[in-house]
Parts: sequence; structure tokens; C-alpha cells
Amino acid sequence: MAASSPPGAILGVDLGATTLAGGLVDGAGTVRNSHSVPTDRLSRGEGVLQNLLAVVAGLLDDARRMGGPILGVGVGAPGVIEVDTGTIGEDIQNIPEFRGLALGRILRERTGLPVVVDNDVNALTLGEWMFGQARGLRHVAMIAVGTSIGGGLILNGALVRGVSGYGGEIGHTTVDLDGPDCFCGSRGCIKVYASGADIARQARSLLRADRTSILLELVGGDPNRIDAPQVFAAAAQGDPMAVTVVARAAQALGAGVGNLINLYNPELIVLGGSVMEAGEILMEPVVRWARFYAFEAAFDRTRIVRSTLTKESGVQGAAALFLYEQGRERLT
Amino acid sequence: MAASSPPGAILGVDLGATTLAGGLVDGAGTVRNSHSVPTDRLSRGEGVLQNLLAVVAGLLDDARRMGGPILGVGVGAPGVIEVDTGTIGEDIQNIPEFRGLALGRILRERTGLPVVVDNDVNALTLGEWMFGQARGLRHVAMIAVGTSIGGGLILNGALVRGVSGYGGEIGHTTVDLDGPDCFCGSRGCIKVYASGADIARQARSLLRADRTSILLELVGGDPNRIDAPQVFAAAAQGDPMAVTVVARAAQALGAGVGNLINLYNPELIVLGGSVMEAGEILMEPVVRWARFYAFEAAFDRTRIVRSTLTKESGVQGAAALFLYEQGRERLT
Repeated sequence: MAASSPPGAILGVDLGATTLAGGLVDGAGTVRNSHSVPTDRLSRGEGVLQNLLAVVAGLLDDARRMGGPILGVGVGAPGVIEVDTGTIGEDIQNIPEFRGLALGRILRERTGLPVVVDNDVNALTLGEWMFGQARGLRHVAMIAVGTSIGGGLILNGALVRGVSGYGGEIGHTTVDLDGPDCFCGSRGCIKVYASGADIARQARSLLRADRTSILLELVGGDPNRIDAPQVFAAAAQGDPMAVTVVARAAQALGAGVGNLINLYNPELIVLGGSVMEAGEILMEPVVRWARFYAFEAAFDRTRIVRSTLTKESGVQGAAALFLYEQGRERLT
Repeated sequence: MAASSPPGAILGVDLGATTLAGGLVDGAGTVRNSHSVPTDRLSRGEGVLQNLLAVVAGLLDDARRMGGPILGVGVGAPGVIEVDTGTIGEDIQNIPEFRGLALGRILRERTGLPVVVDNDVNALTLGEWMFGQARGLRHVAMIAVGTSIGGGLILNGALVRGVSGYGGEIGHTTVDLDGPDCFCGSRGCIKVYASGADIARQARSLLRADRTSILLELVGGDPNRIDAPQVFAAAAQGDPMAVTVVARAAQALGAGVGNLINLYNPELIVLGGSVMEAGEILMEPVVRWARFYAFEAAFDRTRIVRSTLTKESGVQGAAALFLYEQGRERLT
């Protein structure tokens, strides 16, 4: 698809939980003129929207000065998005003021350009597909393991959104029928074992019974300061409690990867997000468990890789989102 | 797709574990001139292939007498199929003589017609999509719960086969990280709780400890005679051991349905196969558990129904397979 992209830039916006980033992206995925603003301290009232509109206006000015055409706007946003209208879903957690916001319509009116809004992990998945490690493949799954766990699926060369945008919620598939409760109302979701927040939560909980863990030192005696990177650091030093938490996270995530292999038989599964930055201490057992839970013949056809995402990936993904929708429209 | 089907009949062949069935199917899914032969007693040597070729030759004679054109041949076969060549996979369990058989090539040479061979549950799924309850939908999953558990997925209007034909193996996704071992090498697969063979196996195993179950009477005192319908019959009479087995099967299958909803957000999930003939005693708790494990907003958009499969469904599905491939070729 990248090969048939028209000349000109796409304005990509990544509406993250902590950072709002925008940039001009060319058809090869190169980002120019990127801007970013923190979102968290602005998440009251209209702050985030005003900042978003200011970033977009600034980028349009940049483009005008540089004389190149802007083809359209792509936005990656948290939660479930109604893609046809670009409306943010009611379940958005990080920016409650955006619930039900018709962001696509607002941006279309402000810019006069075509606008596509979709879930941020769908955008990252399309970014990997158009500009990254998944280029040219037909069947790709992405799991983004951060504070929570999101997913994106490309099957038969098309993004799986489903009938109302819930497609790809890999983190909320159960791998443990009678496992711990999840905030989503279910239990035993991959998320309750392997998300960054849950890795920290499990360590805090175990610390109540085991005061000998070196984790307690790492956080100056205050269990509330435990985060996922500290759990990985303690596990790397052989701390038994931290090793247990990491082992269980890897088993659950590996079962999820194995399930995706048996369901889709994909060519590539990309694991990304801040938790995967722990590196081989997590990646190695995840791949080992995926091999255990999947059919051998299907596993052998799947490459499992860590994402090579950079700070620009969100903006690239948002641009990929626009290019993907434009390609679909040309087909119909 | 059915709407744009050309006039003329398709020769559909369903290569089941117990029955080999063939028929002439028109573009609306109506089956004429159906023939069937048992496969089990013929499964030595070349028996099944000779019978298959005889059924096909007989149907071609019928078609010639009736004067209508035959557009091509569709075959639904067990196991993983290499669709490009129509070659049966090495993992076929029921008809070991068919391992690696180039059935597509053989039928093409014999008939001079275009031939499509694919997995039988993929064929059933396409049959439901072209002629049955899934007509006109974009996102559909089928789970066939019989002696084993198979699955078929249609997403974005395309069958999910994956890179080497393993797509849709729903029965072998794990819903219990540390659950019982499965023959596939994994553990806690939906199959080990909910397939017909495993429902009977669990009951036999529990009978060793609980000799008071009425199941023992139902099978004349011989636990080896227990099958899934008897377990459902005992559960319907309130037998505590049978109720436990059915409850666990429903929970595992419901978790699998819930996982599919969170992964694909489909419009329809069809549950079929001999085990689903147990009716509401299984269907009701499966739907209840699916609601528990899935996102409420996604669950609310999914209809979950029992298949209305008849004895002709396999042949219809095989014909749908041919029409589907022909439609794809017209697009490319």
C-alpha cells in the first residue's frame, strides 16, 4: 500500500495518555515538524482539545510555508472509536472529557481536510504494516503491553475492527477460566497478569506476605512506589518473588500469543509497549510459552518480534491510518 | 455473493469421518441428486478415494442427463488443507491413507473442472454465510462442537485461513493456563472440556470416584459405553456428576465464545456440531458465560445462535467453498 501512496504529507496526531504528539508524515513514513505537548496536566475541561487544535493549526502553517499539499489527517486515540464519524467511545479512561466527542467532525470543520480517527493500537498496527516490520505481509497481530494491554489485527490484508470497533481486544481474552477478576467484568484476562499496572499490583500484593524481597529496598521501603520496571529489575537479580510475578506474566502473555497463532496462523506477531522494553527477561519466556500453547506447524510459520517503535511511531501510525482508509475508499 | 452466482450447478463433496456425501448444488444452495456412502468401513487402503471418485462420476453423469452445466467441484475435508493445490495435510486423523494426498489435482485430472478443497468446518462456515443464517454479514464465527471442536472465521467478508491453513482453530485455544493436557501438545484447550469425546471422558473419569451416578444405569453398568448424549441425558435428570461435567463444558465453551467476541466483535456466532444438539441445557449456560467473559457493549452486538445444519449442510458448504473461491478470483 505504501508503494501506491500519493505524493504529499499526512498530518498525523497521536493522542496518548501522557503526550499529545503531531507531525507531518510522508508516504514513506518519515516524520517532519513533529510537535508534542503533555496531556496529563491538561486533562481538565477543554484543555486537551484546545492543545490538539493548536498542534494541528501549527502543523498546517508549517505545511503551507513548505508548500507541500496535505492529503488529510489521521488521529490515533485511546479506547473504542466509531470510525465512520470519528467519535470517541464512552469507555475512554484517560481523558474522560473526550467521552462521546465527535473529534473527526470537529477536525474536518477546522481543517477542511478528510479526517480518520481510530484506536491508537490499530494505528500502531497499521504503522508497522505500512512502514515497519510487517510491510508486505497479509496476516499480522500486534499486542501493545503497557499500563493496559491493547491489540491490533490485520487479516487477509484488512484491519479487523468488527461491527462496532471492539475488534482486536486481545488483552481482554481470558486464559484462566477461574482467574482473578478484571475491571472489564470478566476474569482471568491476559491483562490481569501481564499489563504493567498488574505486574506492579501482583508484586505489591505478594510483598505483604514476603517482606524479604529486594523489591522493598528498590522502592525505599514503600510498596506503593513499585512499578513494572522495578519488578523486572528485581527479577533480573534473582529475587524469588519478582521471578514468580514475571513468570506468570510471561505464561499468560505466551498463552495469548499461542491462541492468536492457532486462531489466525499469522506470519508475524509484534509485541510492543513499555512493558516489552524489559527485553529478553520477558520476551524469551513469552516465546517459549507461545510455542507450548500453539500448534507446532503453525508456530513454525510465525515470526514473533519486539516492536521497533520509537517516539514517532504513534504519529506514523496515525498517518498510516489515513493512508489505509484512503486505500479502502479507492477500492470501493 | 450468492446473489451474483452464475447459473449452473456446483458438485459438492463432504468427506466426513463417517459419511462421504456428494450432490449437485445450485446457486441458491438447493441440493439435488445427493449420494452418500459410509466412509468408516472403507477406510483401509484406497477404498475411500475409489468411492469418492465413483460418487463424483455418478453425479457428473446425472448432470449430463439433466443437461445443466457443472461449474466446478468443491470438497470439504477433515484437517488442515493446502488450499492452493488441494492437498490434504499430514494431521488428518480419521482417514490416515489421505495424508499428503493431492486430492485437488486428482479430481481436476478426472473431471477437467476447476476444483477447490478446504477444511470441512471452513466449508460449513461458508455455507452458513452464503445460504444460511449468516447471509449478508461481514463478521461471522462458527464453532463446530462434535467429537472434536473445529472453527471457521469470516472477517471483513473474507475467510480467515492464515498463512498455512491453520486459521480458525478455536477448539485449540487455551482458556485454562494450567488446565488438563490436550493431545495437541498444549493444555487447557476448550476441546479438553467441551468436545463430545472429552465430555464422555470426564464423566468416565468421575464415575471412578462416584458410583452413585445414574449414568452408570444408563450405560448398563459399563463406563466404557458412556457418550456425550448420555451425559446430557443424566444432567437433564439432575444427576450431580453429569451436571458438573456439563457446567464445566459450558463454561469453557462460553469463555471461548466470549474471547471471540472481544477479538472480532462479530455480528454472529454460530454454534453447530453434534454436541450442540443437546439443545438449551448446553446453549443457555454457554451464552450466559459468553456474556460474562465478553465486553458488554460488544456482546450486545453479537447474535449467538445454534446452527440449523441438516444432513445436506456439508454438501452445501462444499459448494459454497467453490463459489467463494470463484468470487475471489473474479476480484483479482
